[in-house]
Amino acid sequence: MRSALNYKLVLHILSFLLIIEAVALFVSAGIAAFYQPEQINNFSLFKSNGGFWPLITGASVTLFTGILGWLLTLNVNKTVSKKEGYLVVTFSWILISFFGSLPFFLSGYFESFTDSFFETISGFTTTGASILTDIESLPKGLLFWRSLTHWIGGMGIIVLSLAILPLLGIGGMQLFVAESPGPTFDKIHPKVKETAKRLWAIYILFTVLETVLLMIGNMPFFDAICHAFGTMATGGFSTQNSSIADYSAYIQYIIIVFMILAGTNFSLHFYLLSGKPKLMWKNEEFRLYLAIIVIITTLISVGLVYNLGIDKEKAFRDTIFQVVSILTTTGFVTTDYLNWPQVFWILLFLLFFVGGSAGSTGGGVKVTRILLLIKNSLLELKRLVHPNALIPVRLNNKPVSQNIVFVVISFFLIYISLFAIGVFVLSGLGLDFISAIGVSASSLGNIGPGLGSVGPIENYAHLPQLAKWFASFLMLLGRLELFTVLIIFSPTFWKK
Amino acid sequence: MRSALNYKLVLHILSFLLIIEAVALFVSAGIAAFYQPEQINNFSLFKSNGGFWPLITGASVTLFTGILGWLLTLNVNKTVSKKEGYLVVTFSWILISFFGSLPFFLSGYFESFTDSFFETISGFTTTGASILTDIESLPKGLLFWRSLTHWIGGMGIIVLSLAILPLLGIGGMQLFVAESPGPTFDKIHPKVKETAKRLWAIYILFTVLETVLLMIGNMPFFDAICHAFGTMATGGFSTQNSSIADYSAYIQYIIIVFMILAGTNFSLHFYLLSGKPKLMWKNEEFRLYLAIIVIITTLISVGLVYNLGIDKEKAFRDTIFQVVSILTTTGFVTTDYLNWPQVFWILLFLLFFVGGSAGSTGGGVKVTRILLLIKNSLLELKRLVHPNALIPVRLNNKPVSQNIVFVVISFFLIYISLFAIGVFVLSGLGLDFISAIGVSASSLGNIGPGLGSVGPIENYAHLPQLAKWFASFLMLLGRLELFTVLIIFSPTFWKK
Repeated sequence: MRSALNYKLVLHILSFLLIIEAVALFVSAGIAAFYQPEQINNFSLFKSNGGFWPLITGASVTLFTGILGWLLTLNVNKTVSKKEGYLVVTFSWILISFFGSLPFFLSGYFESFTDSFFETISGFTTTGASILTDIESLPKGLLFWRSLTHWIGGMGIIVLSLAILPLLGIGGMQLFVAESPGPTFDKIHPKVKETAKRLWAIYILFTVLETVLLMIGNMPFFDAICHAFGTMATGGFSTQNSSIADYSAYIQYIIIVFMILAGTNFSLHFYLLSGKPKLMWKNEEFRLYLAIIVIITTLISVGLVYNLGIDKEKAFRDTIFQVVSILTTTGFVTTDYLNWPQVFWILLFLLFFVGGSAGSTGGGVKVTRILLLIKNSLLELKRLVHPNALIPVRLNNKPVSQNIVFVVISFFLIYISLFAIGVFVLSGLGLDFISAIGVSASSLGNIGPGLGSVGPIENYAHLPQLAKWFASFLMLLGRLELFTVLIIFSPTFWKK
Repeated sequence: MRSALNYKLVLHILSFLLIIEAVALFVSAGIAAFYQPEQINNFSLFKSNGGFWPLITGASVTLFTGILGWLLTLNVNKTVSKKEGYLVVTFSWILISFFGSLPFFLSGYFESFTDSFFETISGFTTTGASILTDIESLPKGLLFWRSLTHWIGGMGIIVLSLAILPLLGIGGMQLFVAESPGPTFDKIHPKVKETAKRLWAIYILFTVLETVLLMIGNMPFFDAICHAFGTMATGGFSTQNSSIADYSAYIQYIIIVFMILAGTNFSLHFYLLSGKPKLMWKNEEFRLYLAIIVIITTLISVGLVYNLGIDKEKAFRDTIFQVVSILTTTGFVTTDYLNWPQVFWILLFLLFFVGGSAGSTGGGVKVTRILLLIKNSLLELKRLVHPNALIPVRLNNKPVSQNIVFVVISFFLIYISLFAIGVFVLSGLGLDFISAIGVSASSLGNIGPGLGSVGPIENYAHLPQLAKWFASFLMLLGRLELFTVLIIFSPTFWKK
């Protein structure tokens, strides 16, 4: 415990991740070349209409840096403590966003490095907030890379939330693994690598399946795979200016289903696919997750039909789409919910503070935490009536240690405080009150659309430069379960 | 524990409180007669220009009910358990507000019973939100009763927070007594009655002192005592339509000082007056309370001078007045803070979620709870770095049991949840988003002014009827530390 921080190991792992990113960038360059082969001959390290050369340049710089870092740290001592874990997790998201923003910046399609970085970290944190005012003007290569950042981010999150953070003991994450039904993941696959492989297999399977189903609905392959990336990562970047609004009802329903899947704990999918659907249903978080979707959708869609007199199927589809999109923190849009009567979008806004299931690619507070908070609040009253009785919170029929409930409540408290600080800082940076509320809640929850000037049919382009950096920081905080980032600012962390 | 609820005792105590209320109503009738003696001869049980007869009618009904209830429960079994405590506390505020609203309703100055009840519970909960559009048109007798509801409410709160709630173990209140510096109040004065007498003596002393100091500033006696009632109870009802805005700088500073005193733990005043100022200064809550005032005032007033170029003294006075008024949950106003640049009123709005000190007449979350929350959040990071170390939160150099920190965090969580539910319900009842935020935060925190259509120079008259009842409920919840009221809704409470 008292040993010095193993910076070399941190660098070693980060370098490895950069090499992987470089591969993904080269793939994107390939896509660029495939769709606009003529650009290959218009050599320019930087600007090019199709994005091929900026992607090649970005990929090369990333690869070179990655290999250099890797070689310089070859003789690394592989003993790893938690502290290295925090550093790797936080800096991997920052570093990958930095290098990943290079092609955007070089391409000339983005006004500033700030904008390029914002778009990239919004991608890797699976937020989906965009500074682009005309998405369709971007070449396919860059659009592909943009959607791919979501997908890579989602891959990272699955491993992080089901394999790494539980080991670090962040925000009660150990609970979400240990309390999943039946034998725990840890016990099935003792190694992080093994866990990751199984979950990634599911992730890839769903992505392929969604792509195929979208293509059946006449969506071109390119758009289908980009939307599948955005769905499975609960990201929200679309290839269209109107997001999902102009697609057919079939396509919208397909995306609803896959958003629901993406917002579900991936270890439950593993049970389902192993032929144990009962274990999935027994999970209390999963049932609350579905209950929220059903209840809020019913309330709002009945209200919309009654208030606005719109078609029932359309009202239902619009409602469930926005509810699922916000709850799972995806952020795709098919209608401007700010045009709904106020009480309905406020109901939707409450979901900004719920988020997806633990162990899914969804961000936010997480349904399990909300479940624990509700249960504990009700028990507080019971405890007052019976002050001498020990009344533990029970989850999936097992008592939860007070320590974990404590950590979960602290998490929520810090989340809410950061949201409030966010509103204050953003309003100080020039945003109006409602937009500041929207940006703060949306960034911290990795959702995408917000309120006011960052509403569902708006974008983040008009934000002041500093506000973009601050929102990027909120995305990072939210995505990495707050503590992973905050701990690095704690003086104790740096004490030997 | 298993015995049936002693309803008779609950009735007995409530009846006793009604008799006391009747006395206060008779006193108000006396004030009415003193200022407009001619009305005594214009006999009418109900309407009368001066309010004398409505007050007499209200007082008589209250007295009759009180005596009847008292006589019917004379042979009561005086064994009391916690459950009776909850019932007495919650229903005393409701019942006293109901009977106290009779003179308002009968007088004809209030449009409906809803309005009369809203004004009265706003008084007894020391909130100070008013439905009156022309305060100055009310006769002095009714204005006196209106301000007196504050003062009586404040008296109740002091006893409640320093003697009764700690016994019930509500929301960590035991801590605020047990952790006050030096020997605890419990140990000094083992009986609730003794505690109450000492604290009330201080309360009365400060009220008299403020009245005299206001009169020195040329405020008439009537207005001086009404404002003293409103200040010491951290209430906020004024006798003037413009609240404190049109008074001299001297008067504004006097009120600032007494608001600060009223928002301080009264057991600290006891130490101060016993010649132990060091014990006061050693109290961490008190220091944070002063620090918040100093820091927020500095930030805003420097900002106002810089941004609006207004006079330095005026900027300082306006700022410290609004900061202290909001922090202590008084709600007096000298300027429309919504006219400040947005970032400053948002900073002020954050104080809506802090509140006065524990053991003061101030409402809201309370400074001690915020202090514990901040300390605990910082320690959470330390605990992550050292997962095997036991790191307790320390308050006034003593470790705080994790159990109490747990209760305090749960309290804050429920507070924030109720605020959010409040925003949703109020917007459903027809309020716009920002006004709903304002009413919810202001009512729950017992402050008075809010945001939007209930801003500092507005009133609550235009609220829909149901919104007024809902806001009344939030005031009650906030004033009685949430749990006292919520527990009555818990099924366990009613199980034998």
